[in-house]
Amino acid sequence: MNNTLFSRRNLQFLLNEVIKIEEICSYDYFSDHDRDTFEMILDTADQIARNQLHPYFSEMDKKPPVFKNGRVEVHPMVREWMTQAGEGGWIAASFSYEIGGQQLPVTIRTATSFMFSAANYSAAVYPVLTTGAAGLIATFGSEKLQQTYLPTMFAGKWQGTMALTEPQAGSSLADIRTRAIPTETDHYLIKGEKIFISAGDHDGVDNIVNLVLAKIEGAPAGVKGISLFVVPRLRPTEDGLIYNDVTTSGTFHKMGYKGAPITHLSFGDNGDCHGYLVGEAHHGLTYMFRMMNETRLEVGNAAAAIASASYYNALNYAQERLQGRRASAKDLLQPMVPIIEHADIKRMLLFQRAIVEGSLSLLLQCSKYADLCQVEQEEQKEHYELLLDLLTPIAKSYPSEMGIQSTSYGLQIHGGYGYCDEYPQEQLYRDIRIHPIHEGTTTIQGIDLLGRKVQMQKGIAFPLFVAQVEKAIEDANQDQDLSPYAERLKGGLTALIEVTDRLVGTSAVDPELILADSALYLELFGLVAIAWQWLLQGTTAQRALQTDPSERETSFYQGKILTLRYFFHYELSKYHGLALRLGERDGLTVRSGVEDFED
Amino acid sequence: MNNTLFSRRNLQFLLNEVIKIEEICSYDYFSDHDRDTFEMILDTADQIARNQLHPYFSEMDKKPPVFKNGRVEVHPMVREWMTQAGEGGWIAASFSYEIGGQQLPVTIRTATSFMFSAANYSAAVYPVLTTGAAGLIATFGSEKLQQTYLPTMFAGKWQGTMALTEPQAGSSLADIRTRAIPTETDHYLIKGEKIFISAGDHDGVDNIVNLVLAKIEGAPAGVKGISLFVVPRLRPTEDGLIYNDVTTSGTFHKMGYKGAPITHLSFGDNGDCHGYLVGEAHHGLTYMFRMMNETRLEVGNAAAAIASASYYNALNYAQERLQGRRASAKDLLQPMVPIIEHADIKRMLLFQRAIVEGSLSLLLQCSKYADLCQVEQEEQKEHYELLLDLLTPIAKSYPSEMGIQSTSYGLQIHGGYGYCDEYPQEQLYRDIRIHPIHEGTTTIQGIDLLGRKVQMQKGIAFPLFVAQVEKAIEDANQDQDLSPYAERLKGGLTALIEVTDRLVGTSAVDPELILADSALYLELFGLVAIAWQWLLQGTTAQRALQTDPSERETSFYQGKILTLRYFFHYELSKYHGLALRLGERDGLTVRSGVEDFED
Repeated sequence: MNNTLFSRRNLQFLLNEVIKIEEICSYDYFSDHDRDTFEMILDTADQIARNQLHPYFSEMDKKPPVFKNGRVEVHPMVREWMTQAGEGGWIAASFSYEIGGQQLPVTIRTATSFMFSAANYSAAVYPVLTTGAAGLIATFGSEKLQQTYLPTMFAGKWQGTMALTEPQAGSSLADIRTRAIPTETDHYLIKGEKIFISAGDHDGVDNIVNLVLAKIEGAPAGVKGISLFVVPRLRPTEDGLIYNDVTTSGTFHKMGYKGAPITHLSFGDNGDCHGYLVGEAHHGLTYMFRMMNETRLEVGNAAAAIASASYYNALNYAQERLQGRRASAKDLLQPMVPIIEHADIKRMLLFQRAIVEGSLSLLLQCSKYADLCQVEQEEQKEHYELLLDLLTPIAKSYPSEMGIQSTSYGLQIHGGYGYCDEYPQEQLYRDIRIHPIHEGTTTIQGIDLLGRKVQMQKGIAFPLFVAQVEKAIEDANQDQDLSPYAERLKGGLTALIEVTDRLVGTSAVDPELILADSALYLELFGLVAIAWQWLLQGTTAQRALQTDPSERETSFYQGKILTLRYFFHYELSKYHGLALRLGERDGLTVRSGVEDFED
Repeated sequence: MNNTLFSRRNLQFLLNEVIKIEEICSYDYFSDHDRDTFEMILDTADQIARNQLHPYFSEMDKKPPVFKNGRVEVHPMVREWMTQAGEGGWIAASFSYEIGGQQLPVTIRTATSFMFSAANYSAAVYPVLTTGAAGLIATFGSEKLQQTYLPTMFAGKWQGTMALTEPQAGSSLADIRTRAIPTETDHYLIKGEKIFISAGDHDGVDNIVNLVLAKIEGAPAGVKGISLFVVPRLRPTEDGLIYNDVTTSGTFHKMGYKGAPITHLSFGDNGDCHGYLVGEAHHGLTYMFRMMNETRLEVGNAAAAIASASYYNALNYAQERLQGRRASAKDLLQPMVPIIEHADIKRMLLFQRAIVEGSLSLLLQCSKYADLCQVEQEEQKEHYELLLDLLTPIAKSYPSEMGIQSTSYGLQIHGGYGYCDEYPQEQLYRDIRIHPIHEGTTTIQGIDLLGRKVQMQKGIAFPLFVAQVEKAIEDANQDQDLSPYAERLKGGLTALIEVTDRLVGTSAVDPELILADSALYLELFGLVAIAWQWLLQGTTAQRALQTDPSERETSFYQGKILTLRYFFHYELSKYHGLALRLGERDGLTVRSGVEDFED
């Protein structure tokens, strides 16, 4: 198996040349870091990804977790890896010094996560989930909760999970039924069932710390009555850990992403499941959503990472596999050429690269906004928060949806071999399919973008985004080679603005009608956002080309320009059809009757 | 598991009301058949599909064929099913009475295959492959070959295969290395290796009859030096069947389509593999391509069938699964609604239906052309042959490519459950992924369409297609409700004509440049062809609605109109972006250097 999974050169380009992440080190909070320490961290992550995670990529798929005697057994590498993730500081990296972290920028963590997920997505999720759950405790939990749970979680000894979904409440969180009954001491009694809980139980750690959404008895209906609880599998007492009445009912057999168990958990079957309230009662969903941006960026990032592994495998195969001759030279006495010489293979490779690098660029951009939220104040802070909120549904969905297509091309380039398990493509194709589903489906992201983000606070976020894109257009317009592309993006942006105005303008009229095509709106917005990122990359590359770089570097920058051109010619042009449809107001789906679906 | 896999009402609609298949019974060749016999055949196929094939759908996936002691063991149902397919006349159905068939129209066979593949694609392929191989022997083989092989193949006792691909020659058939050495008797000695041979060996039959492409020693280079041979696993002699030196080297482990073994075969390891020439030497590829239309239609048909199973499962789930409330009624005290009430779920369902029924409509249209080729003479015959040749790459690729997206939506509608094996969606998603690969990849179909079919015989086929579409537009224009859609199709058709003229006009200049975006051309052509089929369906439905049908029938026809509208508003509008790109002539992929792909 080819071992190229991602491009370090591309990460350097995005981090140092496009995003300029070291700028962030001028802020006090990040001032212990510099480009060298970042590079060292990336080097270490690179080694771990290739040498410790990737060797189990296929094996963890072929030997998925086993549910036996009420417990879940996972691959032995999980315990080793969690220990290493703890000892190496990967789980706590982005937390403050105060609570045991390293104050590493989220942007750098995004880059290291990208490498881990490209190497072995299933393995990568264990520490990531722990980081997410720990984040909730660190931000909203009492000091006691922090002291009790964070050290073991940061050490990789205890697994964190997020337990939201229930059998009857998937996307519809307002309808969860898990209950929390107050007691006279510091805990609540939890009763209910949760499904699809990633790493909800396994023997690779000593305990599981579930962050559970539940309703306190008598709470208001809907999302405003949801509270957040820490519900460990084993609860710490003065006598040590004792069983907390959290039963594992089983695991789900998934198509891909098989190395991590997705469990069905039952809380309080025997009336003895203690839950500890995080923050205030009834604010659970607000807390969860504060963390959701990060989790959603992680999903988009993982999708881009899987698509990256697929791209480099396909590129390698296309460079080696001989088949046919070029359309202009059919002389059969000539030797066959590597398939990368064929136009349609190039087209598919360029698509893959455009998706992978465009997505990663947007994810790092959003991560930088997250870091700026950490260090900026007042108006500036709000500015970045708004941009991050607005772009999160896109940064989650675009890599997920387009990453599937991209990975599908990676498989396709391999022909029949791509469909077989001698090559990693078929597993990557199965693994990536989870991403448009978990942490909010694409449907939910579309509604979030158009129904909430674009309209929040009287719509102040959208103009901030437009200003960012306009600035990129202006910069690119100063380069003769790029100005045609700047103009194209202007066309796409204008279409997006018009569509947005038209949709948000009708807001008061009929919410169903506005939201009917929110998935298409999400797609249109995604095209413009990724084109924006490509234009930023192009501007950087053009400037670098003028400094007379080495031959190898010249190739790299020219490859960037080529991929930018690909994206604008082949992908961005899709905005015309989307804008056309979004301009219609027939309510085709909303107004159709369910009976018309009968056959 | 929901047992709705396809709609018989829709098949009736397409066969009887749109295609009007009984017209074909006015020709002598088909005169023994009528609407009633067709209906009886469809009823029987329906029963077999639901009761005999579908029960093994999941089991054959979970217990794939095993390669043991040099042989392939398949599920025991395969022997039963092949016997039934033989005894029931399904293998020979479309052959002439003369050689043991029933002279059944290809169109009806397409409909029955559709039901079989929707129920269990892996099971469906065994007899279909035998039919294809038998077709080659029946059309081009000597009387002796026919007498020796056809009766046992038709009886389902011997399995037919098509053995084209070699390890070094996938899409590039010109480069096959399997050799045929003439002997002084009636056979050649075959030596070589073939891979990806579907059903190339299994214990569900008594013998395997491989139709093998090989080069006779001293033959010209390239495709003009390829001959076709019958190479059985056991060769019939006066003393019965004896081993013919055909070794099974192994099977491939596939992502889906697991119920059928895909084998690696080795011919003549011990110098004793007899092959029997079919037709004349060096004409093998021509023969193979004469059968290819049929095989490619079967692939498109299977893709549409899998997408159909996905659609009905998703529809059923969406009608039953309660989740959330409509965007216009957020009162949480109201009960949750079935998810089909949500606009984005409706959109995905309409997409699925538009793809499934649009594809099936085109496939039946092409099948009717095939039947007309059988019975028409001279100019008329040539007319239908040209249309069939032209449309085959689209009828193969469109259902395959869009069927993947459609099945992906079926999975998505199920949320997290769709990713797990309790529901059939994840298997359907894995199964359908083979279709853009086998029997000529989508890349190859694009080149076939633009490089050969559109240009063949000085481009006479394309105007025939245009005339068909124009006729449909004219008819639809007479209906007030449909005329806006007729106009939209006119826009798409005009764009296709312009793009075609521009591309074919530059033909002499640079073949690479013309073919560079042939995959996009294929996509554009597909949109127009499927819109054409939807307009035909719409015209039929509108007329039926004017006859005051029952409530149930009214719903059916209104559903057709709704789906037509969906296709035109959401799908056809994509032609704008495609035509835009196809109008550019920058040679972006062709002219980019391989070095720009280095990172």
